[in-house]
Amino acid sequence: MKKGIAASSGYAIGRVFLKVNEQIVIAKKTEIDKEEEKRRLEEAIEKSRQQLLEIKERTASEIGEGEAEVFESHLMILDDPEFIGAAMQNIESEQLNAEIAVNTVMDMYLDMFSDMEDEYMRERAADLRDVKDRLLRNLTGSIYASLDNLEDNTVVVAHDLTPSDTAQLDKNKVIGFLTDIGGRTSHSAIMARTLEIPAVVGIEDITLSVKTGDIVIVDGVAGKVIINPDKETIKIYEKKKLELQKEKLELKKLANTKTVTKAGKEVIVAGNIGAPQDVHKVIENGGEGIGLFRTEFLYMDRGELPSEEEQYEAYKYVAEKMEGKPVVIRTLDIGGDKKLSYLPLQVEMNPFLGYRAIRLCLDRQDIFKTQLRAILRASAHGRIQIMFPMISSLEETIKAKDVLKECMKELSSEGKSYNENIEIGIMIEIPAAAIIADELAKHVDFFSIGTNDLIQYTVAVDRMNESVSYLYNPMHPAVLRLIRMAIDAAHKEGKWCGMCGEMAGDEEAITTLLEYGLDEFSMSASSILKARQIIINN
Amino acid sequence: MKKGIAASSGYAIGRVFLKVNEQIVIAKKTEIDKEEEKRRLEEAIEKSRQQLLEIKERTASEIGEGEAEVFESHLMILDDPEFIGAAMQNIESEQLNAEIAVNTVMDMYLDMFSDMEDEYMRERAADLRDVKDRLLRNLTGSIYASLDNLEDNTVVVAHDLTPSDTAQLDKNKVIGFLTDIGGRTSHSAIMARTLEIPAVVGIEDITLSVKTGDIVIVDGVAGKVIINPDKETIKIYEKKKLELQKEKLELKKLANTKTVTKAGKEVIVAGNIGAPQDVHKVIENGGEGIGLFRTEFLYMDRGELPSEEEQYEAYKYVAEKMEGKPVVIRTLDIGGDKKLSYLPLQVEMNPFLGYRAIRLCLDRQDIFKTQLRAILRASAHGRIQIMFPMISSLEETIKAKDVLKECMKELSSEGKSYNENIEIGIMIEIPAAAIIADELAKHVDFFSIGTNDLIQYTVAVDRMNESVSYLYNPMHPAVLRLIRMAIDAAHKEGKWCGMCGEMAGDEEAITTLLEYGLDEFSMSASSILKARQIIINN
Repeated sequence: MKKGIAASSGYAIGRVFLKVNEQIVIAKKTEIDKEEEKRRLEEAIEKSRQQLLEIKERTASEIGEGEAEVFESHLMILDDPEFIGAAMQNIESEQLNAEIAVNTVMDMYLDMFSDMEDEYMRERAADLRDVKDRLLRNLTGSIYASLDNLEDNTVVVAHDLTPSDTAQLDKNKVIGFLTDIGGRTSHSAIMARTLEIPAVVGIEDITLSVKTGDIVIVDGVAGKVIINPDKETIKIYEKKKLELQKEKLELKKLANTKTVTKAGKEVIVAGNIGAPQDVHKVIENGGEGIGLFRTEFLYMDRGELPSEEEQYEAYKYVAEKMEGKPVVIRTLDIGGDKKLSYLPLQVEMNPFLGYRAIRLCLDRQDIFKTQLRAILRASAHGRIQIMFPMISSLEETIKAKDVLKECMKELSSEGKSYNENIEIGIMIEIPAAAIIADELAKHVDFFSIGTNDLIQYTVAVDRMNESVSYLYNPMHPAVLRLIRMAIDAAHKEGKWCGMCGEMAGDEEAITTLLEYGLDEFSMSASSILKARQIIINN
Repeated sequence: MKKGIAASSGYAIGRVFLKVNEQIVIAKKTEIDKEEEKRRLEEAIEKSRQQLLEIKERTASEIGEGEAEVFESHLMILDDPEFIGAAMQNIESEQLNAEIAVNTVMDMYLDMFSDMEDEYMRERAADLRDVKDRLLRNLTGSIYASLDNLEDNTVVVAHDLTPSDTAQLDKNKVIGFLTDIGGRTSHSAIMARTLEIPAVVGIEDITLSVKTGDIVIVDGVAGKVIINPDKETIKIYEKKKLELQKEKLELKKLANTKTVTKAGKEVIVAGNIGAPQDVHKVIENGGEGIGLFRTEFLYMDRGELPSEEEQYEAYKYVAEKMEGKPVVIRTLDIGGDKKLSYLPLQVEMNPFLGYRAIRLCLDRQDIFKTQLRAILRASAHGRIQIMFPMISSLEETIKAKDVLKECMKELSSEGKSYNENIEIGIMIEIPAAAIIADELAKHVDFFSIGTNDLIQYTVAVDRMNESVSYLYNPMHPAVLRLIRMAIDAAHKEGKWCGMCGEMAGDEEAITTLLEYGLDEFSMSASSILKARQIIINN
């Protein structure tokens, strides 16, 4: 038996396929021929491009267009001057050989990306790591293990799984993942949850402990693996698996019910999304709205700001799909640790205490107004609500509303339609906002508590920093008091208060939050049904 | 008339001495002889060393030992492998000429230091800049303007003033400073306040606007300069000067009085210090205690941790000088942006939300216990109180007290004397601590509110970040509410509450803080008398 991190829930009993890539060995050359190294790098890029085009095509035809998209991102990285151009320049100015040049540049970006809080950005890091791996393999001639010829009931065991790996998996045959490294937000973990198969990650030495053909039990609930179990154990787990299936069916029945507590209070259980397509998963899981629509995706992975039209289409798409259910669109929360290549920002010593979100938008009203106009226009097609992030004062709230009013005037004079009574809310994610929530509640229609940031600032902890993350505690009495303050303040003014931080989907916290009177719980789609069940039984 | 930043209060009317250094021009050599460049750097270091020894000796004999100390620091920088060793290595591995190598290494450290909040660290940056300048001048052969032959009533005008400049000044002849660059915490500004002469900094083009011999009025109150004023203006300013002198005499009379409001409430006005010698300035200005004794100085500028004995002597010195008045010693607040060369810490993405102060001390109890033992032993020689920084929870408070108790037991069994009833307090500088102050007050003897950090976390702003520093506002209603919460909580448990952040000496804030019931105001020595006057008249 081995312990790891429970990354995706569920149980699986199957046979191991051990995926071991040949190790990549990077040697530093002391005497180099610059032109030769540049030629080698170009050759490796070209080879990688051919491979990616082929995988992309195969994935698109065999699995689906959506699954093939990831390789488009990989191809874009290959063409990105920030990565490859920099590697070329490293060869020229630092006299490095191609392997070292690629490794240095990519690692710099990887370090930057992997530390980020945003799941989207960490996914980008997985892509980058994948491309780096491919380039280095093509430079050094080391070989990939293939995953395209698996048997039924296979548990894939690997050091780690990259997007290239998971895209090639035959999803009908793989029933679980086990990896040496990674955490709950690594690519392997996210993929397993998407595929709804159990996974245990960070087991450290699982690749050394099993061989292809071994029978394993993947316990994605407790975060453990049992290698070559006896019959008794298999029987126990078969029973557990059955019970879990029953429970899931039970939950599915809740997909179309309202969320009413035993005391008769009706609340909304909604979903958080990061891209328009995510709306389907929320609908499938019975979400009663979108409590947080992050809009950063529109601004990333591209060379320029998105146009009003493009944004309008994205917002409208979600509003229409939700068929009259509320959709809270959060205005741009870029800056801090989320950077855009085409919007150069100063390097900051403490990006979490820096120039981001509403601070940036109030400063760059050109960017802000384009987005507000798009949201307003989309509001004619559904029940859109607008939300400003990182509010710390009354002045910012009023300023943001003033810019919104200006946009309304412009649209009116252009004869474009929008919802004149669109609900306007703010994130409560800075301690100051919670503390003066009584003042703020007079000026907005709703609050949504962003616990991830609120906790970080309240206890002065960057939760991505492993040396201090033990202090990050949603149940810290100071955090609970701030949450209560925000809810009470909203209610006193007859407004509603929701929550879109991870705490809203935290099974342990829900009862407390209900007690405080929280009106809306917004979370990842996969948590919606379980949360509804807890609330209904409360 | 030109506007700038009022860096040191007062008025001066005198003649300009324009100090213009020959510009240093650094050229990058494309083809270099490594050995030759290393030899040049060594030669420049040796030359700089000789100059510094000479200046140091002259300063010591003509001005004073204390004033000469800065050059000891400069000599240490010359010997520091982190700076000079790195420059040498840059020549070797990066093929840089000596000027570029020095410039690159020093600028990296300067960037790091100049961003720091701590005045001490920013002073170090001034020293580093000074040494860099000296090295580059000796490498390029460009010449320093000398400041050692000034006339009476001289106003020194310079692009900026370095420690080398100010140490050579004849303090009897200089009556004011004007500089192109710098802010309230630049070396020129701090020096002017130390010398108690008016200064206006950051005037941008003052060196281009005056010539040696011009008459100028330095208005250090309004932050402006009048160049070649008419007789009428001179008369007005002579009158202002006289009034200010009278006012100062008035203030001096308050040096030995108690601080009692008109309503009869007695409060303590105390001083903040960063090194044992600073205690004299506090006594001179009538401080009723030391409200914050920062202990970082003991750990910096050296190659290893300070011993218990060394710390004991420093703490005892201050306790004895204060003759029974309270001395609040804050335990080590290192980490975050304050680094020690001999204690390597991980690079953090958000150091203000990271591993520092009590977090580090609870983790590194070896370091913590040495300090606690030294403080306890010193407590036998005066009225020492102990204070833990960066407390965010009850658990940390209890843990820190437990370590203190362990130290007490050790000392008892070793037969060493200490104050068994030493008062134990915590900093209230993290929002969580203010919010749960009612709980914390049950476990400590006093609070001291650290407004600099408290404001930063409450509004989520790094005040050193120019893009967002406009949000740093001590009078933000949320900040005021937290301050009030902390004071009320302390009083409810019969404990006292002080403040050692900059806000305690802020003339605008004092009335509000009195209203809230603050018991102790601790500030820089130079603000004490003015604060007492405001309180007495309240």
